[in-house]
Formats: sequence, structure tokens, C-alpha cells
Amino acid sequence: MAHHLTSFLEIDAQSDFTIHNLPYGIFSETAQAEKRVGVAIGEWVLDLAALEQKGLLQLTTANCFNQPTLNKFIETGKQNWHTVRSTLQSLLSAENPTLRDHADLRQQVMFKQEDVVLHLPIHVPGYTDFYSSKEHATNVGTMFRDPKNALLPNWSELPVGYNGRASSVIVSGKDIVRPSGQIKLPNEERPMFSATRKLDFELETAFVVGKATELGEPIAIENAWEHIFGMVLLNDWSARDIQQWEYVPLGPFNAKTFASAISPWVVTMEALEPFKVKGPEQQPKPLGYLQENTANSYDIHLSVEVQTPQSEQANVICQTNFKYMYWSMSQQLTHHTIAGCNVQVGDLMGSGTISGPTEDSYGSLLELTWNTTKPLNLSNGEKRGFLEDGDRVVMKGYCEKNGIRVGFGEVANTILPARHFRFNEQKDERYETV
Amino acid sequence: MAHHLTSFLEIDAQSDFTIHNLPYGIFSETAQAEKRVGVAIGEWVLDLAALEQKGLLQLTTANCFNQPTLNKFIETGKQNWHTVRSTLQSLLSAENPTLRDHADLRQQVMFKQEDVVLHLPIHVPGYTDFYSSKEHATNVGTMFRDPKNALLPNWSELPVGYNGRASSVIVSGKDIVRPSGQIKLPNEERPMFSATRKLDFELETAFVVGKATELGEPIAIENAWEHIFGMVLLNDWSARDIQQWEYVPLGPFNAKTFASAISPWVVTMEALEPFKVKGPEQQPKPLGYLQENTANSYDIHLSVEVQTPQSEQANVICQTNFKYMYWSMSQQLTHHTIAGCNVQVGDLMGSGTISGPTEDSYGSLLELTWNTTKPLNLSNGEKRGFLEDGDRVVMKGYCEKNGIRVGFGEVANTILPARHFRFNEQKDERYETV
Repeated sequence: MAHHLTSFLEIDAQSDFTIHNLPYGIFSETAQAEKRVGVAIGEWVLDLAALEQKGLLQLTTANCFNQPTLNKFIETGKQNWHTVRSTLQSLLSAENPTLRDHADLRQQVMFKQEDVVLHLPIHVPGYTDFYSSKEHATNVGTMFRDPKNALLPNWSELPVGYNGRASSVIVSGKDIVRPSGQIKLPNEERPMFSATRKLDFELETAFVVGKATELGEPIAIENAWEHIFGMVLLNDWSARDIQQWEYVPLGPFNAKTFASAISPWVVTMEALEPFKVKGPEQQPKPLGYLQENTANSYDIHLSVEVQTPQSEQANVICQTNFKYMYWSMSQQLTHHTIAGCNVQVGDLMGSGTISGPTEDSYGSLLELTWNTTKPLNLSNGEKRGFLEDGDRVVMKGYCEKNGIRVGFGEVANTILPARHFRFNEQKDERYETV
Repeated sequence: MAHHLTSFLEIDAQSDFTIHNLPYGIFSETAQAEKRVGVAIGEWVLDLAALEQKGLLQLTTANCFNQPTLNKFIETGKQNWHTVRSTLQSLLSAENPTLRDHADLRQQVMFKQEDVVLHLPIHVPGYTDFYSSKEHATNVGTMFRDPKNALLPNWSELPVGYNGRASSVIVSGKDIVRPSGQIKLPNEERPMFSATRKLDFELETAFVVGKATELGEPIAIENAWEHIFGMVLLNDWSARDIQQWEYVPLGPFNAKTFASAISPWVVTMEALEPFKVKGPEQQPKPLGYLQENTANSYDIHLSVEVQTPQSEQANVICQTNFKYMYWSMSQQLTHHTIAGCNVQVGDLMGSGTISGPTEDSYGSLLELTWNTTKPLNLSNGEKRGFLEDGDRVVMKGYCEKNGIRVGFGEVANTILPARHFRFNEQKDERYETV
């Protein structure tokens, strides 16, 4: 994709959704209307189900786009992903009269994004979250373990990951109810029941598996990219006090399973190809099955904004880049399957919190405020340790090179107050009604 | 279920599948034939799709049984579960002539179990594994941490659990390929790539979620049983050396995701009702949301047998009971949702390894051999630390009271040798070709 493509549509220079991008999502005209596959272009959504119905977009597998998730389309395989992308780039190009010269046809296949409802784009059979930012793992290890040995010995040898909860993967826009559960205060002998006091975001990206494997068939690293369809932004919502109490020895559970939010548009690896860069040097050199000698990272600018109920404008509180990630997506996927675990189309694999080297590039409030010891000063004078009710967190991401921009849009959610709990029967002084 | 029911079928006194049981599974006449819902009775399978087609079994939701999984039937709800059970008990009873007196009809709706293929009975959207045996957690803590503080502080306050990998839940009978991955030997500075040398089973049961919840809606403990459809046996296959190296700080991953095997017949909670017993006293008394004042455990006899390629007969190496479990299924489910995590019909929730108080009641080889320091002596003179290629592990479970028997059948798998790995490019002395 060396040359610039131009669309007949007027697309803002700062739009994430250029003709070079064409990310896939699921939309409907109203919340109850039929869901189908769309592609974001400028401020519009192109309706692929309508294009298919009109014979303007044809795959060997029929009826891929009149679907409530992207899974069926993704399952058609990489060659079809490329065919659809090429067809759409042609249909949208300045030279092609098909849509350009037919306003009536455009009206049938294009909608303003602001007029449609965006849904969870994929059915997620499995959700895995990695922990692949060296800066993030070092920050956490420094805070909670030993600053001199912040990284555990296994961290530099393999992309540490764990199984997340697929059922609570949600799309941008859905509100987050502040979770409740067991927290243990430092001076108390026993835990108490409480709404979390340490609600946090985690800035991540995630990739979507595009090609399944059978149980017992590891993916060799040189084939890993064949299994990846695209990427989204991911906010891996976390309750730090619940996490700290529950996580030994089997890892985070309720601290994470209440919500993991993704951006509605899946950006394809083909669209991201021009932004491929080398990742950090890996020292020690990984074991053979994790060795890859080609560029395997991406130059993706990432940011987090917080808008509080009292503030007129959002505060950018983090700016970082995907390219800092130590372990690559191909290494993550290969490691995930090396013992024989199978993957399925639509599986979501989170990067882990993406923190950069500087204090303003940390991907969580835990790190940005160093566990509340250095509260953030917002532009209107407010301070934040962790998130408060009504706060809205917005994550954005984009690539830009040689005047070509490919962006992710955003993942944004607002915090609602905790539920009121009324337990039946006897009163228990060890929990609070919140 | 105070009175004895009698079937017109001749059912062995030691059969797990009495008229009091009627567990659900998915079967087909050949591996490729159409899958449908069946119920085990004696040595037969009763074809519910055929019964439905013949008008002998009718639900308000049509076509529940001509299905490749139990999920659609389970989704019809608890009242329907009861209706189907009652109808089948009537059809199979000694007094009912419908099937009893019509051999031609019986031939159309009944198959010998030995003549059919049994499949994974449920589509498992989410798999969670708990860690709820005090004896097991104490054994592991004693071996790997501190014998004087074997239980971590959170263990007695909440049912510790973690997300498992749903894609690799398999049905009894499927072979287990010995997994490979990173292991770190005690005297080495770095890990190596190797087939696991510590392949182990974990004796567990699991319950199947029968009623979904919405995100943000915790299940109150007094409603928890309404959300549980039935139980299966679960072998949570584990690679101890991979686990030991990878599990900090986010929990087990590749050590478990290569396979989790379940028995093919789902025994309903209604069938298990007569075997309800009180669980162990909980000290300290749990926080209010986990308090339940009714009997919430089950008297289920459990055993593990190992058959080696050299042995003529299986060796029973563990006998224990579900009733030793400290945390109940209702407590597990309530805790799982307390922060807002939603559950889905078909979700599988493992108990964690079920170990009893005596050395012959431990539910894993890790405990039975105390991490190979006390190898097992098999009846033919062989010894076992962990499992060897060709070994077959069989787990069984049953309830028996007042002459009524309700059993689970078995979950059985055989170990196959590890895959041969040939990594491309340069030779790396740090991994082995196995």
C-alpha cells in the first residue's frame, strides 16, 4: 500500500476511518433493528449486507454480512478478507462511479455513524489477557513486590497470560456499574463487603483470532500472523482492592470479570501493515518456539482521557504507544497454543496494560497515581486517585505515516454508582450496604 | 423422591443409570450421524428426539432434543426439566405399557450405549474452576509454600476460583496428547522446552449453569440453586512442571488449557436431591452474601483408577467424597457473580480438586505421591510418580442411599506421547525435540 488512495467521499484529514482503514463492525439502525456488518468510512457506515444483496460484494460463501457478528465473515478466510477490502476500496475510490454518481444507491447502503447503534462486533468464544508490557510489569512489581526484583523470573522468558471471562466482554458505550465484593483493609483482621474503592482502567489493545486450530495443534510462530484478523482497543476494567485480596494463588477473577470493554470497529492487520515496526530487543533471546526474525510490532499512538462530571472537557492523562510492547502478538498466540490449547475464530487476546517509559505514558491509574500516593491533578482543579462515579474514560488509538492515517476510534464508558445490596436474614456487620 | 420406582427394563443393581437418575447426554449412531439428546437408562440410551417426534414428549418450546448440545433444552427452564423427568419416569416405569408392551417402538427410540457415540453434552460458553477443597489447598500449600501457613488468608473467606479455557473442554474418551512447553529445572538458570514430565489428573466435579443472568446482576445465594442444572465428573488435566514455572502472578495457563475432560452424562440436581447433606462447618462464618443455612452439599462417592499398558487391571488409587468440599456450589456461583459478572446457560464450574482427609483420598498424583517423593505402588509391581504414556485414567462417581443409586458413569482418557516439534531455522540448544 505504497500509494495514496482517494475517496469520492469528503473525509476529514483527522478521521480515523480513511479509505486506507475500512474497519469492520456490527450496526443497526435502531437498538432493536436487525444487526449487520458495516464498515466505517469517514463519518459514515457502509452497509455490507446491503452491498451483498445488491450484488456489489460477492463472496463464495453467501450471506456473510447479514449477520449479528463478524464471525461468519471472518471464518471465510484471509483471501476473502483481502477480496472484500479491495472491492470496498474500489467502490469508495474517487475513480469509481458506482456509488459516487448514484446518490439513491448511496442512500440505501450508507448511514451516518451518529444515526446508528454499534454493537459488540464479534462473538467472543474465548478471552485471554496477556501481561506483555515490561514497563507495566515492572511498575506493578515495584509497587507490590520488590523494586530490586520487580520482574518475576518467568516474565522475560514467556508472554505471561491468563484466561479472562468472555461473557463480560462489552462494547464501548455501555455503562460500568461500580463492582462490589470482598476487600481487606490493611488494619483489619478480616475482609469486608464493599463497593470497590479502587476502580481503575487498563489501556490495552486486543487482537481477534481469524483462523481456528484443533486441540493439540500448536501454531508455529512463522504461521501465527495467518491466524490474526484484526485489532481493537480494550479497556480491561479492574477493581484493584478486590484484586489484591483475591488474586493469590490463581490470578485475578472478580476484580476483572465485571467488564472488559472494546472499541466497536475491528481494524484489520492488512490496514495496519504499513505501520509495522520492530519491537524492543528481547534479552535473553527467547526459546526457539518464540523466535521471530521479522518486524512484529506496530506503531500505534494510544491515549486515555478522563472526563469528570464537574469538568467541562476531557483530560488527557496518558499518552503511549503499542510499539513499547515487549512480547508480540505472534509470540502471544504461539505461546498460547504450544501446549495444545485450541483457538477459535473470534477469540480475543488482550495485550495487557500498555505502559511506556515515562510517567505520563502509564496505562492505568494504579501506575499514574502510584497507587494514590501521587494523585492526578485535573485541569479544573479536581484530583483523582482512582475513578469516581460519573467519570467517563475514553481510550483512543491511531497510526499515521506519510500522510496516511488509520485509527481505531474509541472505547468509552461511564461509571455508574454501585448497586445497593440488601442481604436477607440476619444483619452482618462485616458488609456495608452501599 | 421417597418411594422406589421400578422400570420395566432390566437394570443391573450396580448400574449408575437407574430410573431415579435419567442423566442427559448427546449421542449419535455413528461418529458422523446426527447428534441428538439422549437419556441413559441401564445399558440403553433413550432417544428424546425420537420421543418428541412421536409425540411422546412435548414441551412448549418445540424441537429441543434434535440438537447437537443440551443448551436449548436447558434454556427452556426448570419447570420443563421437571416435566421431562416426570414424563420419562412414567414412560419407563413398570406400570406404563407405552414402551413396555411395544418392542417395535422401543427399537425406534432406544439404543444400546455400547452401539452409540457419546459427544460433549453441552456447548460451554465459559469454564471456571474453583479451588474449594480445604484438604487439597492445604496439601498444595504445605508442599509449595509454608506447612505452618498452608492456607492463604483469603482461602477461608471466599471460594477462590479462576477462569479456565472453555475451548479445550472435551468429553470422556478423547485421548490426551502429552503437552509440551517451558519447564525450569531446579539447577538451571533458564527454562527449557520439553514435554511435561509431571502430567497429572485432578479429580473434580463440575456443575452446569441452567439459567443465565445479565451483566451487573449478582445471584443472591438463596436463588443460586435455581441457576444450576446438573453435575458431571471433571478431570482437570494438569502439567505440574509447566504450572510451577508459569503460574505467578496471574495463575495457571498452559498447564491446564490443553484439556479438561468431562463425563458424557449430566446428572440433574433433581436426581441428586435425595443425597443432599450438610457441608463442613465454616469457620470463620462467611460474610453475609455467602451465608446459607440449608444443607448444601452432596454425598457423592468418587474414585480414580489408573490402568497402565503393562497392567491387566485398573488400580484404584483414590477414593474420596464430594461432601468434604468446604465451599458449596451455591457459594461458588454467588461469589462468581457478586461483582457483576454474568453467567450463561452451559457455563461449566469446576469444584477444584476434591481431596479427602486421608492419604488415599487425595484427588491428584501431586498429592498422592507427594510430588513424587512417595511413588505409588501399583498391583503389578509398577511404580508411578506422575503419569506415563499409555496410562489410562478413569474417574467414577455415584450416590447410594436406601437402595437407590444415582451414578455419573465415568470420565476416562488415555495419554498419548508428546508431539514431535521441529522448529524452523537455527538450532536452539535450549529446547528438546521430544
